[in-house]
Amino acid sequence: VPDGGFGQENLPWGVVQSSPGQPRPAVRLGGDAILLEPLRLASVPPETFSQGSLNRFIELGPGSWAAVRQELQQVILAGRDEPHRVPLAELRNAIPVAIGDYVDFYASLEHASNLGRMFRPDSEPLLPNWRHLPVGYHGRAGTVVVSGTPVRRPCGQRPSPDAGPPSFGPERRLDFEIELGFITGTGPPLGTPIPVTEAERYIFGFVLVNDWSARELQRWEYQPLGPFLGKSFATSISPWIVPLDAVRALRVSGPPQDPTPLEYLRTDQPWALDIELEGELNGTVITRTNARGLYWNVAQQLAHATVNGASVAAGDLFASGTISGTDPGSCGSLIELSWGGRDPVRLQDGSERTFLHDGDVMLIRARGGTISFGVVSGRIEPAQPA
Amino acid sequence: VPDGGFGQENLPWGVVQSSPGQPRPAVRLGGDAILLEPLRLASVPPETFSQGSLNRFIELGPGSWAAVRQELQQVILAGRDEPHRVPLAELRNAIPVAIGDYVDFYASLEHASNLGRMFRPDSEPLLPNWRHLPVGYHGRAGTVVVSGTPVRRPCGQRPSPDAGPPSFGPERRLDFEIELGFITGTGPPLGTPIPVTEAERYIFGFVLVNDWSARELQRWEYQPLGPFLGKSFATSISPWIVPLDAVRALRVSGPPQDPTPLEYLRTDQPWALDIELEGELNGTVITRTNARGLYWNVAQQLAHATVNGASVAAGDLFASGTISGTDPGSCGSLIELSWGGRDPVRLQDGSERTFLHDGDVMLIRARGGTISFGVVSGRIEPAQPA
Repeated sequence: VPDGGFGQENLPWGVVQSSPGQPRPAVRLGGDAILLEPLRLASVPPETFSQGSLNRFIELGPGSWAAVRQELQQVILAGRDEPHRVPLAELRNAIPVAIGDYVDFYASLEHASNLGRMFRPDSEPLLPNWRHLPVGYHGRAGTVVVSGTPVRRPCGQRPSPDAGPPSFGPERRLDFEIELGFITGTGPPLGTPIPVTEAERYIFGFVLVNDWSARELQRWEYQPLGPFLGKSFATSISPWIVPLDAVRALRVSGPPQDPTPLEYLRTDQPWALDIELEGELNGTVITRTNARGLYWNVAQQLAHATVNGASVAAGDLFASGTISGTDPGSCGSLIELSWGGRDPVRLQDGSERTFLHDGDVMLIRARGGTISFGVVSGRIEPAQPA
Repeated sequence: VPDGGFGQENLPWGVVQSSPGQPRPAVRLGGDAILLEPLRLASVPPETFSQGSLNRFIELGPGSWAAVRQELQQVILAGRDEPHRVPLAELRNAIPVAIGDYVDFYASLEHASNLGRMFRPDSEPLLPNWRHLPVGYHGRAGTVVVSGTPVRRPCGQRPSPDAGPPSFGPERRLDFEIELGFITGTGPPLGTPIPVTEAERYIFGFVLVNDWSARELQRWEYQPLGPFLGKSFATSISPWIVPLDAVRALRVSGPPQDPTPLEYLRTDQPWALDIELEGELNGTVITRTNARGLYWNVAQQLAHATVNGASVAAGDLFASGTISGTDPGSCGSLIELSWGGRDPVRLQDGSERTFLHDGDVMLIRARGGTISFGVVSGRIEPAQPA
C-alpha cells in the first residue's frame, strides 16, 4: 500500500507538537505531518488552526471539512505544503480533540454474548433489550488519552470469591478492548434528535480505541448502574482521525438484524465498515477481527444516542464497544481470548497471558483497503504503591 | 434570614448575562450580582474573570479561591463593589462552569432501597456491593443545563408490559430527582488518587441538581451497562455555586456505616451536610428531605471516584444521587412518592400526579442555617412531534 496507508486519499487529522512548540493541528501524509496553521488556507477563518485541538475546526461543520480537504489536496498537488512538512519522528502526537462526552456502545453480538456467558452464567447471555437497541453508557471523557500514554494498573475493590467482603488492591484481571470510535461535529440543539438518515453530516472521522478494562473492579461494581472505575482509569485513542470521506470506500452492508429495528433505527444505507483490526501484545499478534461484523452500525448508534433529544458537541467520542468475531481467535479482549482466564494465550517468547502483566505493551492497528487507521498503543505501569 | 440566605457568609459564584452582553463571572449578595471582571481583584491574574465560565478561576486552586473570597469581603466592606452591582432582575444566569465530566452517585440508602424494591421486586433491594462502595456512574456532561432551561419530554423505547417488543413514543413516567452536587478543582495527575483526607482541597463548591429521569426508558435500557437515555436528555443545576467555605458550619457527622468501609473510604471528619431540601411541583411543596442522611459523603465519593487513578478536572460535577429520607413525605423523586405510580400525589389545585405532565414546573430549593443554595427549576415541554 503506497504511503503506508496514509496517502492522499486518507489525509487524517491530528495534533502534533515539537519539543519546544505548542501543540498544533496537522494532517498526515505518508511519514510526515503537514502543519495546518502556516498554510493559511482560504476555506476557513484564519484562526481555525491556531489552537491546541481540532475542536474549532470541527465546529465549522461538514461543509468546511470538505472544503479544507479539497484545498489541501490542491496545495499538495502544487507542492505548496513542502515548507510545512515535518517528519513524524521529530514530533509527538497530542490528543487531537478536547473530548466533551464519551459514549461507549456494546455493538458486537459476539462480544455481548461472550460477556453475558461469563458474567451471568445462569441466564440467557443476551438480555431482552439487546436486539432492540444499541446498548451504551457514558464513560469518563477526562481520562481519554492519546496513544503512547502509559497506563497505570488501577487499584480498587475486588470481589471475594465466596460472597464475603471485597478486598482492596491492584487489579489482577487487567484487560484491553479493541474498538472503533467516531468523533462528531456539532449536532442540532438540545431536544432535537439526529435522524438515522442524517448521521453522515455529524460524523467527522474515526479513531481506534483501547477501552482498558479492570475486570475485577467491573464485576464487583457494575450492578445496577453499569461500569465505572473498571473503565474510568484510562481509555486510549489513536492520534490520527480518519475522515469519513476517506472511509467511504469501506462502507458495506452489515449483518441482518432480527427483529427489524424500530423506525428511528432503520436504514438501508451501507453503514458497516470493512476495517480489519488486529491486537498485538508484546509483539505477538493475538487476535484479528473486522468491524464489518458489528450488529449495530455508527448511524444507528448516533440516532439512538440522540433520539431522546440529547445534544452532541464537536469533539464528542462514540466508541463501538469491543469488536469480537465468531472465530476463536477473533475476540477483541483477553477475557474472551482466555475465556475468563481459563485458557492462556501464548506469546512468541513462550510466555503466556490470561490478563495483562506490568510492562506489557498492547497495540491495536487497523486498515481498510488503502486506508490505514494507524495504531493505538499503551504500556502497563505497576500500580501505585499503597 | 438576612439577605435571603445570600449574605456575606455565602457569596456564591455564578455567571450572569445582561441582554446585549457576554456572560461573565459574578458573586451573589442578597438580590444583586457583583460582576467580578471590573473589580480588578489583586489576588488573581487580570484575565481570570474575562471568560464566559468560572473554569479559569477554578483552575487556580483553593489558595486563590480563599484569597478572592477574602478580598471580596474587604471590597464589599469598603463599598467598592457598588458600581458593579446589578439587580438580579436585570440579568439572566448562564451555566456557571463548562462541565468536563459528570458523575452521579447513588448515595442514599433509602433511595437505593426504594428503587431496588420497585425495579427488582423479587430480590434483595440493596445489591451486595452497595454498603461497600459509593455506587456511581457517568452521566452526560453536555446536557447539564442551568436552572430555568425548559426540559423537553424525551421519546424513546418503552418496555412492553408483557415481555413483548418495546414501543416507541414519548416517555410516560417522567420524573425528577432531588440531588446535591459538588464542583471540583483540578485534581492530581492521571494515575494518582485523591485521599479521603484531602478531599477538602478539591471541592470548589455546591449546587442543587435535578437529575430528570425517564423511568420507562431507564427500566428497559439499564441492564447491563446502566442508565443512558433515561437520564441523558437533561440535568438541571442551580446557577449559584455555594463555596465549600460557606458550607463549613453545616458539616455534621453522618449516619453510622456498617460494615466499616475499607481504609481508603474511612474518615472521621464530619462530612455529612445539614442541608434541608424541598421539592415544589406547580407551587405545592410535595417533599422535604435533608442531605445529612446520605450514607456516603462527598469526601468518600471523591476518594472512591479517583482510587483507580482517574483524574479530576476543574469544573467536573459530582452529584449525590436522589436524596430520600425515611419518612413517606421525604422522598426525592416521584417514583418513590407515588410508589411506582400507585399512590398519586395531590397538589394544592386539587389535581394529582404520579409522574410529570407537560407544562409542569418542578422546583428544588435548599438551605442550611443562614446559607441558601437557591433554586433549580424547570418546566416540562411536550415531546417533539414525530
